Amino acid sequence: MSEPTCAEQLDEARRWWTTSIVDIHPGEIAMRGYPIEQLIGNVTFPEMIWLMLTGELPSRPKAQLLEAALVASVDHGPQAPSIAIARMAATCGPGLNGSMASAINVLDDVHGGAGQQCMEILYQVDAEAGPDGDLDEAARTVVARQRAEGLKYFPGFGHRFHPVDPRAPRLLGLVDAAAERGETSGRFAHLGRALEAAISAGRSRPVPMNIDGATAVIYCELGLPAPLGRGVFILSRSVGILAHAWEQTCQGGRIKGPQAKFLNYTYDGPARRDVPDVADRG
Amino acid sequence: MSEPTCAEQLDEARRWWTTSIVDIHPGEIAMRGYPIEQLIGNVTFPEMIWLMLTGELPSRPKAQLLEAALVASVDHGPQAPSIAIARMAATCGPGLNGSMASAINVLDDVHGGAGQQCMEILYQVDAEAGPDGDLDEAARTVVARQRAEGLKYFPGFGHRFHPVDPRAPRLLGLVDAAAERGETSGRFAHLGRALEAAISAGRSRPVPMNIDGATAVIYCELGLPAPLGRGVFILSRSVGILAHAWEQTCQGGRIKGPQAKFLNYTYDGPARRDVPDVADRG
Amino acid sequence: MSEPTCAEQLDEARRWWTTSIVDIHPGEIAMRGYPIEQLIGNVTFPEMIWLMLTGELPSRPKAQLLEAALVASVDHGPQAPSIAIARMAATCGPGLNGSMASAINVLDDVHGGAGQQCMEILYQVDAEAGPDGDLDEAARTVVARQRAEGLKYFPGFGHRFHPVDPRAPRLLGLVDAAAERGETSGRFAHLGRALEAAISAGRSRPVPMNIDGATAVIYCELGLPAPLGRGVFILSRSVGILAHAWEQTCQGGRIKGPQAKFLNYTYDGPARRDVPDVADRG
Amino acid sequence: MSEPTCAEQLDEARRWWTTSIVDIHPGEIAMRGYPIEQLIGNVTFPEMIWLMLTGELPSRPKAQLLEAALVASVDHGPQAPSIAIARMAATCGPGLNGSMASAINVLDDVHGGAGQQCMEILYQVDAEAGPDGDLDEAARTVVARQRAEGLKYFPGFGHRFHPVDPRAPRLLGLVDAAAERGETSGRFAHLGRALEAAISAGRSRPVPMNIDGATAVIYCELGLPAPLGRGVFILSRSVGILAHAWEQTCQGGRIKGPQAKFLNYTYDGPARRDVPDVADRG
Repeated sequence: MSEPTCAEQLDEARRWWTTSIVDIHPGEIAMRGYPIEQLIGNVTFPEMIWLMLTGELPSRPKAQLLEAALVASVDHGPQAPSIAIARMAATCGPGLNGSMASAINVLDDVHGGAGQQCMEILYQVDAEAGPDGDLDEAARTVVARQRAEGLKYFPGFGHRFHPVDPRAPRLLGLVDAAAERGETSGRFAHLGRALEAAISAGRSRPVPMNIDGATAVIYCELGLPAPLGRGVFILSRSVGILAHAWEQTCQGGRIKGPQAKFLNYTYDGPARRDVPDVADRG
Repeated sequence: MSEPTCAEQLDEARRWWTTSIVDIHPGEIAMRGYPIEQLIGNVTFPEMIWLMLTGELPSRPKAQLLEAALVASVDHGPQAPSIAIARMAATCGPGLNGSMASAINVLDDVHGGAGQQCMEILYQVDAEAGPDGDLDEAARTVVARQRAEGLKYFPGFGHRFHPVDPRAPRLLGLVDAAAERGETSGRFAHLGRALEAAISAGRSRPVPMNIDGATAVIYCELGLPAPLGRGVFILSRSVGILAHAWEQTCQGGRIKGPQAKFLNYTYDGPARRDVPDVADRG
Repeated sequence: MSEPTCAEQLDEARRWWTTSIVDIHPGEIAMRGYPIEQLIGNVTFPEMIWLMLTGELPSRPKAQLLEAALVASVDHGPQAPSIAIARMAATCGPGLNGSMASAINVLDDVHGGAGQQCMEILYQVDAEAGPDGDLDEAARTVVARQRAEGLKYFPGFGHRFHPVDPRAPRLLGLVDAAAERGETSGRFAHLGRALEAAISAGRSRPVPMNIDGATAVIYCELGLPAPLGRGVFILSRSVGILAHAWEQTCQGGRIKGPQAKFLNYTYDGPARRDVPDVADRG
Repeated sequence: MSEPTCAEQLDEARRWWTTSIVDIHPGEIAMRGYPIEQLIGNVTFPEMIWLMLTGELPSRPKAQLLEAALVASVDHGPQAPSIAIARMAATCGPGLNGSMASAINVLDDVHGGAGQQCMEILYQVDAEAGPDGDLDEAARTVVARQRAEGLKYFPGFGHRFHPVDPRAPRLLGLVDAAAERGETSGRFAHLGRALEAAISAGRSRPVPMNIDGATAVIYCELGLPAPLGRGVFILSRSVGILAHAWEQTCQGGRIKGPQAKFLNYTYDGPARRDVPDVADRG
């Protein structure tokens, strides 16, 4: 093999990294082909997230389902390791970026992977049913198969703390309404409920869908690959991580040790109140 | 000092961590007092970000300015260390969470702090002018003082690559329009332009406001504390970091070394295209 | 179930975390039962690493094998993503801790896991042979089985860059010498060479053991669990990561983009020289 | 400016990154000029750390002081945020690398910077005294100056938990012994004690040197730049971080929340025992 020429070396080096996400020239920035100045002010942040991750802009109704899921997952309190880490880190000296990095890092298979794993099962049921199959039967088949393979807890169903996770029925209601308006198929909402029924069958208590299950239904309705389910969850939970890191920064404290899970923490924020209409905000 | 009683010990431990962000009871989740099921579907993701960070819901027009800033900052290509790190990490084995953490971690003072630093200067000019002072004169005073203290490059102004950063005038135009409608004061847009003029005075070429300056104007219009300017920037840039980590994951590669800054990368995405109207999307 | 008493709650909370590593009281610190002031000055750093990870102090000859492995793995140049990330991070603003964290984070299965994976295979061959079996035959059996299961590249063998990795024969020679002196069994050195022969059989070129294979042999000789093989590797590579982060910090640079793998980097350090005798150092 | 030629572009790209740490060619690896196969088995791990960080091999006595400091700092229990984070992370899914990264990341100015800050003050006292000045007077001058500038707690002195930190006198004793043998100057041990006296003067209780102060004395004796004081501390504490992450991994647990600082943890390891002579180990 002869030595490559200078031009060949340069060319090979230039092809080392390739992206279809962003293209930049002096005075020009385009994302997935769209000039950034057209995107700014014309697409919502969830639409931009979708464009960046999938390459195309979603319909507005689909973007609103994504938005509901992003809103739903921002935080579940400082007893979660990710939030606890963010707060402790904020008392150790790194900036908000460092506190966020240490926290986001632990949103791995166990602490941040339930939504992704639930999506994988939903896609399995979808494939099991095929275009014309019975969805409920497919759910029962997949549940039986997974149990035979040793799965004990189905990701996306049941909650150690909430008898019913208040986020799940609300999200599912939004999917139903969108399906009624023809904005989404509703197939995965059906599949999710079929899974819930199949998992709960024969138990004294039902095992209701939780936030991970309900967001998985939405991400599957939208056609997102399962690993991106975790990615989008991280974008959402980052908001809570940042809020807690910042609150702890404002509270001060140096090298602040952890709080016991058993002892809970103290809430000193506003009392319960209703979300005002848009016209009454701000 | 007598030994605290058991109840006192428990009580002290419970007060160790205090938050006004989130309150959770079985079947109940409230953020800043608002039940989560009311927030889902009724507030946008940028509004939720605002609520989590500041404690209150913004007006919709203010939320739309925040949204424009979030959309504008998602990515500036794989030559930025944060994006390069995300892509390399994705070939080393950690999940998307790990790739995101390694990348977000470097959005520190130098690589991610320009917006925050520009906000600090904008707030200095604001204070210098006081309620009735001349904004342009205040900008000149602050620029002169900062230069006397050794500042050479004003964060938020000038760009090594773009003669004019296409994101900045677009964002500033949105602030102007909102100010005309009385939705925001417009004071910081004025201050930002005054800073641009003061910095550029006497130079052969103007030093135009860049993305960090324009988002700083928006975050100051909204009254965000300067450190949260970096926090919100990280929420935005996380989208690009995730998109590149995922693209690299799909491309494959193992232990993939870096690309040279000098050689650029190859873009193989869609050609330039216009952002369609909402009715024509999806 | 009756509500636990205050004392029960306190007690349960106290048991939430349990460790056998460290015990601390005012004026007293003990690691694995040994007072820290007895350890300081009496055990080497590799012996301390061993004590912390396994609970007991090693013999000095075994500690010296560990030490050789720790010395061998510190660095393999800035084209490795971990080192490249450390250098880039150092130009972005986080301290040395942040640069190290972003880099260490990517030492996952792909970039940092070969030693651990090689240990797993060595332990498989060890189990296959049993106490009296033929080691070479066991190696051939495991290689054939792994290939049948789809393994193409055996972790710990072969190198894309080095025809012979200069670290491997040196480390193996130290194991041989220790085995001759009866300080270690030498069984895993035999198994490692048997694997090398089985992997190379029928190929035009041998597939020689690399650094990951040679350190895996040492860690197996010492009886380390396979996941700790990666842990100890990280302790070693952290030294190179810190050295490069610090060198880059001293060189300066802001938001410094990556270097192309194809183009290599420039070495401007001392010319080749021999390691002086201890008496001639410092 | 004319377009650079292909060769110029290649050349510029090759110079983009420069290192004097490591030089690699097929079959050859040299660290600071020394062939790796000569270093393996001939230098200790602390000597290798020194070589990588400073460019030269230390004398053995100096390396032993470094070794004592590395041994001393490995762990101070799971109530420290770094160790707490490592344990929590280990229950969330990332590998040992991810748990270590999240933990190391928080060893910033506040949680990991006291040694570095103490070194800076020691170097100030050193400069204040000059070659012939009175060391005790210089210490008093610097303490008074620092207090006038607002410093309340001197990094490296005093401990919230230990009346006397058992690691500090032991380390200082090793420096004294080395100084008596002429292996190190002992100047910074003197300066450290002078600082202790100056800080304690006029107080009802002395403010004794702690582990950060004692290791700072050693690192200054060795001539390490202050920022590397933190770097070397991280290399040491990484051992404890790894040990705790691994212990928690073996204990199991999923998404395990934090332990309360007030409640302490349970120690279930070996009872107090003496470090055996080398001949009786292993």
